[in-house]
Amino acid sequence: MHVEGRKRVVIENVKPEIDCGRFPIKRIAGERVEVTADIFADGHDTISAKLLYRCSGNNAWEEVPMNFIENDRWKGTFIVKELGIYHYTLKAWINQYHTWQKMLRKKLDAGQDITADLLMGIDLLVRTAKRASENDRIRLREFIHSLKESNREKACAVAISDELTELMDTYQDTEFATTYGKELQVIVDREKALFSTWYERFPRSCATEPGRHGTFKDCEKILPEIARMGFDVFYLPPIHPIGKTHRKGKNNSPVCERDDAGSPWAIGSKEGGHKSIHPQLGTFEDFGHLIKTAKGYGIEIALDLAFQCSPDHPFVTEHPEWFRWRPDGTIQYAENPPKKYEDIVPLHFETEHWNDLWEELKGIIIFWIEKGIRIFRVDNPHTKPFQFWEWLIKESKNKYPDVIFLAEAFTRPKVMYYLAKLGFTQSYTYFTWRNTKREFIDYLTELTQTEVKEFFRPNFWPNTPDILPEHLQYGGRPAFMSRLVLAATLSSNYGMYGPPFELCINEALPGKEEYLNAEKYEIKQWEWDTPGNLKDPISRVNRLRKENPALQSTSNVRFYEVDNDYLLFYGKATEDLSNIILVVVNLDPFHTQSGWVKVPLSELGIDLNQPYLVHDLLSDDKYIWQGESNYVELNPHLLPAHILKVRKRLKREADFDYFM
Amino acid sequence: MHVEGRKRVVIENVKPEIDCGRFPIKRIAGERVEVTADIFADGHDTISAKLLYRCSGNNAWEEVPMNFIENDRWKGTFIVKELGIYHYTLKAWINQYHTWQKMLRKKLDAGQDITADLLMGIDLLVRTAKRASENDRIRLREFIHSLKESNREKACAVAISDELTELMDTYQDTEFATTYGKELQVIVDREKALFSTWYERFPRSCATEPGRHGTFKDCEKILPEIARMGFDVFYLPPIHPIGKTHRKGKNNSPVCERDDAGSPWAIGSKEGGHKSIHPQLGTFEDFGHLIKTAKGYGIEIALDLAFQCSPDHPFVTEHPEWFRWRPDGTIQYAENPPKKYEDIVPLHFETEHWNDLWEELKGIIIFWIEKGIRIFRVDNPHTKPFQFWEWLIKESKNKYPDVIFLAEAFTRPKVMYYLAKLGFTQSYTYFTWRNTKREFIDYLTELTQTEVKEFFRPNFWPNTPDILPEHLQYGGRPAFMSRLVLAATLSSNYGMYGPPFELCINEALPGKEEYLNAEKYEIKQWEWDTPGNLKDPISRVNRLRKENPALQSTSNVRFYEVDNDYLLFYGKATEDLSNIILVVVNLDPFHTQSGWVKVPLSELGIDLNQPYLVHDLLSDDKYIWQGESNYVELNPHLLPAHILKVRKRLKREADFDYFM
Repeated sequence: MHVEGRKRVVIENVKPEIDCGRFPIKRIAGERVEVTADIFADGHDTISAKLLYRCSGNNAWEEVPMNFIENDRWKGTFIVKELGIYHYTLKAWINQYHTWQKMLRKKLDAGQDITADLLMGIDLLVRTAKRASENDRIRLREFIHSLKESNREKACAVAISDELTELMDTYQDTEFATTYGKELQVIVDREKALFSTWYERFPRSCATEPGRHGTFKDCEKILPEIARMGFDVFYLPPIHPIGKTHRKGKNNSPVCERDDAGSPWAIGSKEGGHKSIHPQLGTFEDFGHLIKTAKGYGIEIALDLAFQCSPDHPFVTEHPEWFRWRPDGTIQYAENPPKKYEDIVPLHFETEHWNDLWEELKGIIIFWIEKGIRIFRVDNPHTKPFQFWEWLIKESKNKYPDVIFLAEAFTRPKVMYYLAKLGFTQSYTYFTWRNTKREFIDYLTELTQTEVKEFFRPNFWPNTPDILPEHLQYGGRPAFMSRLVLAATLSSNYGMYGPPFELCINEALPGKEEYLNAEKYEIKQWEWDTPGNLKDPISRVNRLRKENPALQSTSNVRFYEVDNDYLLFYGKATEDLSNIILVVVNLDPFHTQSGWVKVPLSELGIDLNQPYLVHDLLSDDKYIWQGESNYVELNPHLLPAHILKVRKRLKREADFDYFM
Repeated sequence: MHVEGRKRVVIENVKPEIDCGRFPIKRIAGERVEVTADIFADGHDTISAKLLYRCSGNNAWEEVPMNFIENDRWKGTFIVKELGIYHYTLKAWINQYHTWQKMLRKKLDAGQDITADLLMGIDLLVRTAKRASENDRIRLREFIHSLKESNREKACAVAISDELTELMDTYQDTEFATTYGKELQVIVDREKALFSTWYERFPRSCATEPGRHGTFKDCEKILPEIARMGFDVFYLPPIHPIGKTHRKGKNNSPVCERDDAGSPWAIGSKEGGHKSIHPQLGTFEDFGHLIKTAKGYGIEIALDLAFQCSPDHPFVTEHPEWFRWRPDGTIQYAENPPKKYEDIVPLHFETEHWNDLWEELKGIIIFWIEKGIRIFRVDNPHTKPFQFWEWLIKESKNKYPDVIFLAEAFTRPKVMYYLAKLGFTQSYTYFTWRNTKREFIDYLTELTQTEVKEFFRPNFWPNTPDILPEHLQYGGRPAFMSRLVLAATLSSNYGMYGPPFELCINEALPGKEEYLNAEKYEIKQWEWDTPGNLKDPISRVNRLRKENPALQSTSNVRFYEVDNDYLLFYGKATEDLSNIILVVVNLDPFHTQSGWVKVPLSELGIDLNQPYLVHDLLSDDKYIWQGESNYVELNPHLLPAHILKVRKRLKREADFDYFM
C-alpha cells in the first residue's frame, strides 16, 4: 500500500515558487531569499521545519530553521553568495520532545499528576542518546539520571531547561520527516542585473566632423561625457556589416540612395555576418580597445543580439536550409502586410536542421563573450522559439554566469513574462506607454507586489530608436524631465536612447510614434551641447541613484496618497530604513500642480511628533515637514519633480553641547 | 541537446488545477468543467488548442476545442457524466493553414501580389492530402486543382471557403504539438454531494415513552415527520456499544451514575466495537429495516465514523499494538490538559503496525457500506494522519464512487481545506461562528469566489450536539429563524441537530458554547410539538430549496448592496437566469431593521424600465418592484428574512388577447 504511513507533516503553498517549480526565481549575489510555506500536521503536536539550500557546485545541503509566523505559515531565509544557480527545498517533522514538553507544562499548570509523563520523557532521552555523539550521550545520561532522581519540581525544571532542549533538538528523530518534493531554483546574477543605467547610441553617428562615418575610436572620445552623465552601460546597436540588397533608405524608404547607410539590423554582407564588424566602424582591435577604455570609466559595452539576416548574409548561401524558401524559389523576407521588410530575412527555426542553427547562434554569443562582452540586448526575442532561448541562456550562463541578457520584447504581457521566466535577466516594459497616475500605480504594483517580481526585472526606457512616445512628442522639455525622473526612480534598471533624449528631440513621423529622419536609417551628427539639453539633470539623477541604495532596487517602491491626480507620489527605502527617498512627479507637462502629500510616517519610522527634513536632491532645496500631510507645488517648466531624501530627525536645542 | 526544438506553443496557468495537479477538483455528475489556460507561441502564427478528457475507465481521450478569449487566455468545457474519476489535459499547436489564410487576407487587403503565397497554400494542401482519408484526399485534390486553375479572386475565395478550412482543420499537422505535461483529475460525485439537507438526531432519544431507551424502530416512527420537514439525510451519532470504563456522567461529569448512558463516541465494550450495534438500539435486521423504510421517504441514513475507542473496545485486548502504552503500563487516554477524556483511548497511528490498523479501519467502512450505508460523517478527521484519509477515501470510492464523506473538522483553516483536498466530499465550516454582515461576505467570498470552491463543499450547521453558539443562546427564536434561513440559502448543503434546533433550546453551560444537560451524555425525551417550534418554517424552507434549482448549489451566491449593516442581501440564480432567488436577512434578532436594497438588474437580466414581481416564499407575500433600489423592512419577531423568487416580467395590457 503506502511506502510510509507515518509521515504526518504537510508542506504546501511554498513561496516563491514559479509555475510549480518549473522556473527559477532571480536574485543578485548577496540578496536574501525569503521562503514561506504552509506547514502543519494532524493533531496538536509541535512541528520543526528546516529550509535547505545549496549552490549548484555543492552536493551538500545547508540548513536553516523555519520559524512559525501565524495561521500555519512558516518562514526561513538564506543569502545567495555565489553567481550561478542555487537550489532550495524544505523538510519538516514532528518534534517529539517539544510536543512532550508542551504537554508537561499544561499538566503542571493544571496541577495534574505527571509521574507517567516523566517516564515518557526519560524514554525519549534514552532513545535520543542512542543517536548522540559520545560526549552528548554522556551528558544525556546525566540528564536521565537527574530526571529519575529529582523531585517533581526539579525534574520539570531540568526537562524544560535550555541545555537539555538544545541537546534534544540536535538529535531529533527525523525518520518520518516530510521532504518537500521539489527542488526549487534561484538564478544568482551579479549586481548589475538589478541596478544598471544604460545609454544607447549609434557608434556610426559618433563622429565629430559632419559627413564622416563614426568609428569605435570616436566612441572612445565620448566616453568621458557618458561617464560624467552617470551611465554604466553603453549599448551599441548592431556593429556588423550591413546588407546591400533591398537596403532601406532614409525614413524607412524602400528606395535607397547611393550613400544611404542602411539599418544596422539588416545584418550581414559579403564582408561577414554576426561574427564580423562593419569595416567602417573599425577593427576588432579597436573594439577591444573601446571595451578596455570604457571599463576604465566604469562603463560596460553592451551589444545587440539580433538573430536575423540581410539577404546578403553569408548564411544564406552557406546554410540555405536555415531559411524559408517560397515555392517560386525566392527567399522569405520579413513581412507583416502591408509592411514589407525586404532588407531582412528571418531565420527559419522550424527547419529540420534547427539543431545546427541553434548551435551556430550559441557560437555567436560565445564568440562575443570571448571578445569581452558580458551584456546583450536581445532584439525581438518573442519572434524566436521559447525553447531556443531557454536553452541558449542556460548554456551561456552555465559557463559565464555573469552574462546579462536584456529582452527587447515589446509584445503581449504573458509573452513578456514568459521570456523572463525562461531566463532573460532584464526586460523592456510597458513603462514607455504609461501616462496617468492610475496607470503607473497599477503597472508598478503588478511588477513589484506580485510573483512577477521574482522573475521579471524591469528596465525602463522613455524612448528607443524605434519609439518616440506621444507624451514626449507634445510635452516638450518638461515631459522629458519627468520621464527621466520616473524611469530613474521607479526602476533600478533604466536606459535612454541618446542623444535624442537629452536633446529633447520630439519630431515624429505624422501620426506615428516613430522618429522623423530616424537614425536607424541614416548617419547623424549630433549637436550634443545644444542649450536646454538635459545632460546636467541626467548627471544629477544618475549620481543620486548611485548615492542612495534605496533607489538601487525596484520592488521596494510604494505609492502614497496625494490629493491631486496629476501628482504621483511614491517612496523607496532600504530595509533598515537608513535610506529613504520620496518622489513627487508632476505628470502634467504644461501646468503647475500642487497638493497635499500624505507621508506614511509609521511605515518609514518617522516620529509623528517631531519635524523632519526633506532634502530635494534635484533642486538642492530643503524643506522642514511635520506630520503626515505636507504641501507640494511643482512647476513643470522649472522642475517637474521632487526627489526628496528624508532625514528623520532635525537637530534640536537638546542636541547642543551646552544644553543641560 | 533538446528532444524536439520545434514545439513552439506554450500552455501554462491552467485552471482549475489544485496545487500543481496534486489534488483533484470536484464535480457532481452532469456538471460542467470549464478549463482555461494561457496558450501562446512566439511570433504571430495562429494557434489551435484542444481540451482532452476521459473517464477513468476509458483509455481514449475525447477532445473538445479550446476557444480564444482574450490576452492569450483560452477556454474549453466538458461535462462529467459518470461517477468516479475523470482526467483532463491540454494540447496546442500552430495551425499552419489558418496562419497562411491570415497572411493571405492581409496581403489581399493591402493589394499585394499573392502568386507565391498561393503556391505555398497549394503546398500545404498537398501535404495535408497525404494524411487524409481516401474521400477527403480526392476532395483536397479537387481543391488543389481549383487553386491552380482559378484566377486570383476565385482562388482566394476557395482558399478561405468554409469547406476547405474545415477539411484542413480535420487533418492538421500536430507533429510538433505541445501537450500539457500533467493529467488533472476530477472526482465526480452523485448529486447529494452538492445538495443535501441533514437532520442529526440521537436514536436512543427517539422513544415516545419517558425513560425508555430509544430503538431503530422508534427512529422509523419519526421518519414521516423528518420527511415532512424536508430532510433527505438522517444522520445518527455512533450506534455502537458504549464503553463502561471511565464512562462519563451527565454534563460530562467524570462521575457516572448507575443509569447513565455514556457518550456514544466512547465506542466499544465487551458487546463489540465498530462493527457492532449497541444492543439497546436493536438488531442488524432492525437497522436494515430502518435504512429501507427511510429510503421509502427519500431519506438516507448517515453514520458517524469515529475512529477512537473506549478502554473496553475489543481492539484494546486483541490489538494492544494499535494503542499507546505509557511506561507505567497504563493505556494513553485522550487528554488536552486540563481536560481529560478517560472514557476514550485514541488509536496510535504512529504504531509500527499502522499498516494493519489502516486495513482494519478500511474494513469497518466497507462493512457498513455493505450494510447499505453510503454517507459517513467523519468525527475529528484532523486528529488522524492526512495520508490515512487520502488512502482510505480513495480506496473506498474506487469501489463505491457513490460514498459521501463529511469531514467534521472544526480546526484551523488550512487543515480544513487540506482534508477537503485529500478527498472529503463535504466539510463542516466556520458558518457556525459567523455573525456580522462583513464576516458572512468575507467568508462566503473565500468559499465561493476562490480556488477553494473547486475542492471544498461547505455544509452549514447552525448547531451540533457539541456547539450551541452564542447568538443562539441570547437571540431567541428570531436567531434560530435567521440561522435557518442563512444556512439553508447560503449553502446548498446544510444540516441541524434536532430536536434542540427546532425547539429553540438555548440553555448553555455558563460561559461556554455547550448545551446544558447535553444529550451526548444522557437519554432525552423531546416534546417535539412544543408551541413555537420551527418545524413548519423548516418544512417551508426545505421545500423551497427543492423547488428552486438556484438554491441547489453554493458557489453561485453573490452579495449585493443594502444600506443597513444589519441587513444581509444576496442572491442565487441558475446559469440561464430561469430561476432567481434574492434573500434579505435581518441579522439583528431584537429590532426591526429596514433599508434600501440594490438589485443588480442587468446581472439578473431584469429590464430596468419594467416592474417585476418578487414573491416571498417564506411569508407568501408578493411585492411589485421597479428599478434597482427597493425598500425592505424586517421585524425579526415576525419573520427575520425574505426569500424572494423573482418573476422578471409582469403581465401588462399588451398581454391580453383583446389588446390590439
